[in-house]
Amino acid sequence: MNSSPKTSSVTTPSFAQQIESAWDSQASMLCVGFDPDPQRIPSDLKVKSPNPREAILHFCCAIADATADLVCAFKPQFAYFAALGAENELAQLIAYLKDKYPKIPVILDAKRGDIGSTADQYALEAFERYGADAVTVNPYMGRDSIEPYLKHAGKGVIILCRTSNPGGSDLQNLAVLENQKNKPEPLYLKVARLASQEWNGSGQISLVVGATYPKEIAEVRAIVGKMPLLIPGIGAQGGDIDATVQAGAIANFPNTGMMINSSRAILYASSGSDYAEAARKVAIATRDSLRNSATK
Amino acid sequence: MNSSPKTSSVTTPSFAQQIESAWDSQASMLCVGFDPDPQRIPSDLKVKSPNPREAILHFCCAIADATADLVCAFKPQFAYFAALGAENELAQLIAYLKDKYPKIPVILDAKRGDIGSTADQYALEAFERYGADAVTVNPYMGRDSIEPYLKHAGKGVIILCRTSNPGGSDLQNLAVLENQKNKPEPLYLKVARLASQEWNGSGQISLVVGATYPKEIAEVRAIVGKMPLLIPGIGAQGGDIDATVQAGAIANFPNTGMMINSSRAILYASSGSDYAEAARKVAIATRDSLRNSATK
Repeated sequence: MNSSPKTSSVTTPSFAQQIESAWDSQASMLCVGFDPDPQRIPSDLKVKSPNPREAILHFCCAIADATADLVCAFKPQFAYFAALGAENELAQLIAYLKDKYPKIPVILDAKRGDIGSTADQYALEAFERYGADAVTVNPYMGRDSIEPYLKHAGKGVIILCRTSNPGGSDLQNLAVLENQKNKPEPLYLKVARLASQEWNGSGQISLVVGATYPKEIAEVRAIVGKMPLLIPGIGAQGGDIDATVQAGAIANFPNTGMMINSSRAILYASSGSDYAEAARKVAIATRDSLRNSATK
Repeated sequence: MNSSPKTSSVTTPSFAQQIESAWDSQASMLCVGFDPDPQRIPSDLKVKSPNPREAILHFCCAIADATADLVCAFKPQFAYFAALGAENELAQLIAYLKDKYPKIPVILDAKRGDIGSTADQYALEAFERYGADAVTVNPYMGRDSIEPYLKHAGKGVIILCRTSNPGGSDLQNLAVLENQKNKPEPLYLKVARLASQEWNGSGQISLVVGATYPKEIAEVRAIVGKMPLLIPGIGAQGGDIDATVQAGAIANFPNTGMMINSSRAILYASSGSDYAEAARKVAIATRDSLRNSATK
C-alpha cells in the first residue's frame, strides 16, 4: 500500500467516459443501489448462507446479474456493508461487478469528508482497495477535502449538493450571501457553483441532487451545464420520475446527464425465491419510465 | 446484528459523564489521535510485524500505553485503518483501550453523514461493531442524518462545526441569512446554534472546532454554553495553544470543556526504538502547556 496516488493508464476509460458509454449503449439512466439489509433479504438466501455477510454478497450479485443490461451504473452503499463488518464482501462485490460487467461504472456511496491528509487515505480506500470508479463525498470541509480524490486521474468524485432527505433543507437551503453585492442564494447552489467551476479543473466532478426537489434539480442543471447528476430519491423515497427527468434533462440529449438511483424498490421487490426476477421487472419498469419521461 | 438501537444500561456512564470524569481525574484536556501511517511508523515495528495492519495495531497500543495517564480521550481516525483494510485491527485497538483504560472515552473519528436509514447502519458500525463511546459526524445533511446516532442512549455525537483545514472556510464561513430580519452570520455559527439547541434534546452532542481559528472558538463557546468541544489543529497543524485554551475555556472550570487533539506530533515524535518514550514526552509537554494556559 503506497500513499502516493496511482494514475490510471491511458487505456483505462475515465468515469466520465464510462458513464457516457453506458448511457449510450444501455439507453438507460437507471442506477441500481446496493443497500443490503440482512433483515430484508429473502429467507431462501438466509437458509443457504447463514452467515449474513455471505448472504448479502450472494444477494447483491444476483441482483446485479438480473439488472446489468438495464443500468448505467451500480452504487454499493458502504454503510450497509460496514455495519456487518462485510468490507471483504464489499470488495468481492465490486470485483465481481468489474469482472463481469466491465462497462458499467461502480460508484462507492461512502459520503466521505475529511482534511487533506486523511482524505488521501479515503481516496486510497475507495479507488485502490475497493476499485470503485467513483466515490460520493461531502463538501462541508471545502476544497482541500475534495482535492485528494481528484489526484486519482480519471476517477469520479460525486459531491453532495442537494440531498433527498427532509433534513437536507436544514443547511442546504439556507440563504447565503457571498458578499454584500450579491443576491442571496441557497447554499446548495453555491456548492453547485464551486463544484462545477473553481473545483472542477480536471472534469472529474459530478453532483448529488435529490429527486424529491425537481425544481432544485433544474436550478442546479442551469448552473452546471452537462455535468452528470446522481439523483437518489425515486422509488422508496417517493420522488416523481417525470418531474425529475424533465428537470435534469440536457436539451437534445435524451437518456443522458443523470444517474437516477433506485435501491430498496428494486432490491426488495419480492421477499420470495423469485426476488431476482421481481427485481428485474421493477428495474425494467423503472428504466422504461425514465426513457418515456426523457422523450416526452 | 440487529438494526434496532441498543440502549445502554443505567450502569454504563454516558460519553458526557466519561469525559467529565476524565477531565476531573486526569486534569488534562489532551486527546491523543491515532492516525497510523504505515510509512511513518518506526522501522523496528515494521521488522517485528511485516504485516502493516499488525504493525499499526502494535504501534497504536504502545502509544496508548505511553500516554493513557495524560489524556482525557483517545481518537482513532477511521480512514487510516480503512485504507489498509484494517477494520479488525481498529476493532481490536478499541477493545484494547476499553479493556485496559475503561475510564478514557474513545471517539471514532469517521465524519459520517447520510440519510436516516443509512445513518442507522453507521451508528451500528460505530457503537456496536467498534464499541466507540462517541463518533464524529458531518452536519451537511441536516437533523435526520444526526438523529440515528442519538437513538443510542448515552453515546456522544460530535458534529463538525468549524474545521481546522484551509478549505474549511469555503462553506463554513459563508454568511447565511436565516430570514430577512436576521443579521447574516457565518454558516458554522448557524451549525453551532442548531446543534446546541434544536438538535440537542438529549444532551449527547459536542462540536468540532479547529484550533487554527481561536476567535471562532470563542464565538462558538458563547453560543453553546458548557458543551464539550473537540479541537483538532494543535501540533502538526500549527494552532496556538494559549489562544485556543483561552478562547474555549469555561469560566471557573479550568481543564474542562475541551478535548484538544494532537495526533502526528505525538505519534511520530521519534522514528527510532524510543518512539513510545518520545511520544510520552511530547504528550506530557502538551498536557502541561494546556494546563498552564488554562490557569493563566
